[in-house]
Amino acid sequence: MRALVFDAYGTLFDVLSVTSLCELLFPGSGTALAVMWRSKQLQYSLLRSMMDRYADFWQVTQDALVYSTRALQLDLTAEKRVQLMDAYRTLHAFPDVKPGLAQLKSKGLSLAILSNGAPPMLASATRSAGIDGLLDAVISVDDIKVFKPSPRVYALAPARLGVPPGEIGFVSSNGWDVAGAASAGLTAFWIQRAAAEPADELGYQAARVVHAITDLVAYNSAFPFPRQEG
Amino acid sequence: MRALVFDAYGTLFDVLSVTSLCELLFPGSGTALAVMWRSKQLQYSLLRSMMDRYADFWQVTQDALVYSTRALQLDLTAEKRVQLMDAYRTLHAFPDVKPGLAQLKSKGLSLAILSNGAPPMLASATRSAGIDGLLDAVISVDDIKVFKPSPRVYALAPARLGVPPGEIGFVSSNGWDVAGAASAGLTAFWIQRAAAEPADELGYQAARVVHAITDLVAYNSAFPFPRQEG
Repeated sequence: MRALVFDAYGTLFDVLSVTSLCELLFPGSGTALAVMWRSKQLQYSLLRSMMDRYADFWQVTQDALVYSTRALQLDLTAEKRVQLMDAYRTLHAFPDVKPGLAQLKSKGLSLAILSNGAPPMLASATRSAGIDGLLDAVISVDDIKVFKPSPRVYALAPARLGVPPGEIGFVSSNGWDVAGAASAGLTAFWIQRAAAEPADELGYQAARVVHAITDLVAYNSAFPFPRQEG
Repeated sequence: MRALVFDAYGTLFDVLSVTSLCELLFPGSGTALAVMWRSKQLQYSLLRSMMDRYADFWQVTQDALVYSTRALQLDLTAEKRVQLMDAYRTLHAFPDVKPGLAQLKSKGLSLAILSNGAPPMLASATRSAGIDGLLDAVISVDDIKVFKPSPRVYALAPARLGVPPGEIGFVSSNGWDVAGAASAGLTAFWIQRAAAEPADELGYQAARVVHAITDLVAYNSAFPFPRQEG
């Protein structure tokens, strides 16, 4: 294993860290809004890819916010919209992210992000989390105008890093992203951020389940893992 | 307008009519299971299409059931699985479906289904609802092994009916299906089965919103409607 490639949203950055701002702007509806916003954001990324109507993740994120506030009958003023979208530029990183990446980097692994996010979103989020200096590449699907889990997305990692797919580990908290990467031939690690969440039933599983980025350091000597396929 | 093409699940057939059986088998969890089952079924159809790993809608429906029972920590025995999947073969039709289709048929319109459903599922559901005799065609995505909202799916309707896209109305209760059909050049009708649901923010809207299949009969004289695009 020569490189580890990370999903960004939900894996490195806590998409629910917008909940407190949602609650501040819409008292009593913060959690419902944050959860629906994330769910529609993912759904719209899939639907636009399927429709051959790509729009970048910033647009998709804003469309999902507009839908979610309408569905919850909340009054999204222009000012509140700007505040919430700004929060998405500076999502909190999970506490294990910075120390985990630093330890993996010190082992000589190449580290990268492979994300649905638009390049400006990823640039501000990695800078805000203080991890931009630890990453060898920040790869966005925007280069090819299709979202995960298209196999064309996962093929960007070996192409951009110059490392064969068999020597790349892909890390995501999203079960469907794990399945997509495994289906595309990468060794997939599922970082379980939610406690009792079952694996997705998509025919492709993670090679290993971990609970923090720092857990990957201990596995380093055992690389590469055998890949399980459905 | 020479033909009306209908989505099946959620539009003609009430996917939540399995709720009572869910509740009978898993007391206290019936609604949660029925809602999650439907949500994962749709998500898996999108994910498998994006991954280029098509499996038919029967398999996707069963995978979604397995995931949902695990997520809700319900014990899905083989017997309960068979009972629930059997219920999907004979979903209830909404009460406006049979009279609506009969009235539209009597106006001389060609009527068809265009659905994600596997052919045997659609055959048993239309027979069970007593509408098989009213349909000129039952078109399944299984012919091309990709799910909605791929534009390739909506192109099946003009090809199979021998009617130009501009003379086909497509009717769905699913906002994303409406957007997909409109994006693919069909005149889309949104039949709003849930009261206060907002339109999806995907850049393509319905030409008209109706609340029952029978509402379409009154609009017949006004065909064709102008198509709105985002």
